[in-house]
Amino acid sequence: MCKEIAVRLAGAAWLFGSAALCQQPGTATAPPAPQCGPVVRPDNQVTFRIQAPKASEVSVRWGVQLDIGNPVKLTRDGEGTWSVTVGPLDPELYGYTFTVDGMRLIDPCHPEVKRDGTKLESMLLIPGGTADLYASRDVPHGTLSQVWYSSPTANLTRRMQVYTPPGYEEGTGRYPVLYLLHGGGGDETEWNNQGRTSQIMDNLIAQGKAKPMIVVMPNGHANRTAALGAIAAPVPAPPSAYSMMAGGPRAAAGLFEQSLVKDIIPYVEKHYRVTANKANRAIAGLSMGGGHTVTTSLANPDMFNYIGVFSAGIREVNDDVEKQFARLKAGNLKLYYVGCGTADQLAFANTQKLVGVLKKTGLPYQYKETSHGHWWGAWRIYLAEMTPELFR
Amino acid sequence: MCKEIAVRLAGAAWLFGSAALCQQPGTATAPPAPQCGPVVRPDNQVTFRIQAPKASEVSVRWGVQLDIGNPVKLTRDGEGTWSVTVGPLDPELYGYTFTVDGMRLIDPCHPEVKRDGTKLESMLLIPGGTADLYASRDVPHGTLSQVWYSSPTANLTRRMQVYTPPGYEEGTGRYPVLYLLHGGGGDETEWNNQGRTSQIMDNLIAQGKAKPMIVVMPNGHANRTAALGAIAAPVPAPPSAYSMMAGGPRAAAGLFEQSLVKDIIPYVEKHYRVTANKANRAIAGLSMGGGHTVTTSLANPDMFNYIGVFSAGIREVNDDVEKQFARLKAGNLKLYYVGCGTADQLAFANTQKLVGVLKKTGLPYQYKETSHGHWWGAWRIYLAEMTPELFR
Repeated sequence: MCKEIAVRLAGAAWLFGSAALCQQPGTATAPPAPQCGPVVRPDNQVTFRIQAPKASEVSVRWGVQLDIGNPVKLTRDGEGTWSVTVGPLDPELYGYTFTVDGMRLIDPCHPEVKRDGTKLESMLLIPGGTADLYASRDVPHGTLSQVWYSSPTANLTRRMQVYTPPGYEEGTGRYPVLYLLHGGGGDETEWNNQGRTSQIMDNLIAQGKAKPMIVVMPNGHANRTAALGAIAAPVPAPPSAYSMMAGGPRAAAGLFEQSLVKDIIPYVEKHYRVTANKANRAIAGLSMGGGHTVTTSLANPDMFNYIGVFSAGIREVNDDVEKQFARLKAGNLKLYYVGCGTADQLAFANTQKLVGVLKKTGLPYQYKETSHGHWWGAWRIYLAEMTPELFR
Repeated sequence: MCKEIAVRLAGAAWLFGSAALCQQPGTATAPPAPQCGPVVRPDNQVTFRIQAPKASEVSVRWGVQLDIGNPVKLTRDGEGTWSVTVGPLDPELYGYTFTVDGMRLIDPCHPEVKRDGTKLESMLLIPGGTADLYASRDVPHGTLSQVWYSSPTANLTRRMQVYTPPGYEEGTGRYPVLYLLHGGGGDETEWNNQGRTSQIMDNLIAQGKAKPMIVVMPNGHANRTAALGAIAAPVPAPPSAYSMMAGGPRAAAGLFEQSLVKDIIPYVEKHYRVTANKANRAIAGLSMGGGHTVTTSLANPDMFNYIGVFSAGIREVNDDVEKQFARLKAGNLKLYYVGCGTADQLAFANTQKLVGVLKKTGLPYQYKETSHGHWWGAWRIYLAEMTPELFR
């Protein structure tokens, strides 16, 4: 209790005289460093630690995509602290969880978490290379806003996240816009949370590698108002609210794509200082959002000059599909960026079909092939590689 | 894996042909409801559940302030699921954690969490009464933005959260501003996360009870750029970054108050459509932020027409202090709102001294006494009660 008080008093002790309430007034000024939580060594070896005195088996699992990592066992010391040192790990933004006697949990000593659908993971960034783009650095920062907009098409008021670049508030200029779409398990928070969009854009813009742009991250499930926690559901949210996030009721096919064109883009072009033309619009998405990107851009060939499809493709190439891509080509598209991993069993084959039709049509495409599966580690890289090409 | 794929495909299955990859294509359309996580019954009894087959003792702790609740033991069933039914619970926004064989953890089945300093808690809202103000409801929503501003006073670029009310983006009118300050263990995210500022303001404005206003929530630690996770620290953040949140190095006394007046208020009045005068400025804060409120308003008697001090007061009343309050009185202040709980051992006595000097000076004060301790449950109520009085 005394410590709690000391914490709340920091900086205003004279107002309350906290010392008089505490038996050990010194605790207010020099709290001990936590004895648990991950330790990253200079060579990128990582020690994972957890206090579980009564447990009989503890393991840790980490990864770019959590579920693919094999669990590694921790060893108990005499005090009941379990630990293991692994690595060196490659630079990356990892998720990790402990499994204690069969029960999976996030690190109780590490307050940084990320959410993958309904699952929370402890978050650990190993610096270096592309991962440096994911860190919050001492550079000018854009503003991230949670914005509610009316979607007459979906008959809902819905939420999106909007990144405006450093300098937007100070200036009077107009900006290009990237519409950035998440996957089937995600929501409007996912690109910024797992995808680190703010950090990637801040860092690329600071390095002069990307043009300052607005990034609009809507919720791709046209029958949902917003991410869990911001939904206007009965409180507390019933289990069905969570199952919605894990693949619940689907919106009608094409409804999101329609709302993007009829509701979201007009809202953005009305409320932000935007250059509202094809040359200054880009659209990109991952997985389901890649599908949204393919369909929206084919249906509206005069709308976007830049298209990015991450870990998604087309199932079937036929005459009709080829005609649609020919219309895109006729519109003088600047870039069709495609990214996919060779281990992406879900999207790799269909990505090849997409690349095939792009090549055959003669569209100006770039194809980035990595070794990833259907994972966030891939999508952050594709975003970081594509955005420098936009609006040039 | 098949289920994972199905999740990511929701809404775009035709693009990929997911069924061909899955042995049970039906799983995509009807995922089972989770068999764990809290269940709230119509009478507000709550069943807490956790799967821990190998554990020998499991308890749950919940509360407005988590640490004050006594743990309640759960009972194991034959399958290894532990559960207990408690309550009925009073309407409130609760935190809860499980303790499994001595190890404290959040609910692995419940993705809604709130953060109290460095500690994560599972979050559970029991509806009714004032707690209904804390829920995300189907009303017009304001925009919440994470904004970076230059603080020459603190020699840092720092982050704050800004709530703009529904209609701000659509209109051209100017708005009053409430500067809302957190406590010593908090950061710029705390008033919205634990304090539910967006929900409270949305709901009060929708009910016509509060005037539409801008709410500015800065970080009260003048030597920190932003909340953990957004700090430009070496990555990953060293333990010292976490200990900062638990009472680490303090900024010089008065530095935040100076930066508020010299940096933050000018930034807000330049960048937002604000009515920049005393009649349209309010300041309020809790604990350390209550101290910031007392000192800032006394030092700048012509700046704020509305002052709110939650769970904070003054240590000593003397001639000099009385003179400062007399200056406030001379400035024709509209409201000095004070809220404190009788169980608040930290602030109750000093609150009485503050109320005493307000009374003696003849300032137009309101004093709200509740039974709370030094807890968020109190501060949400004081915010909800004070804001309808502002800018009338």
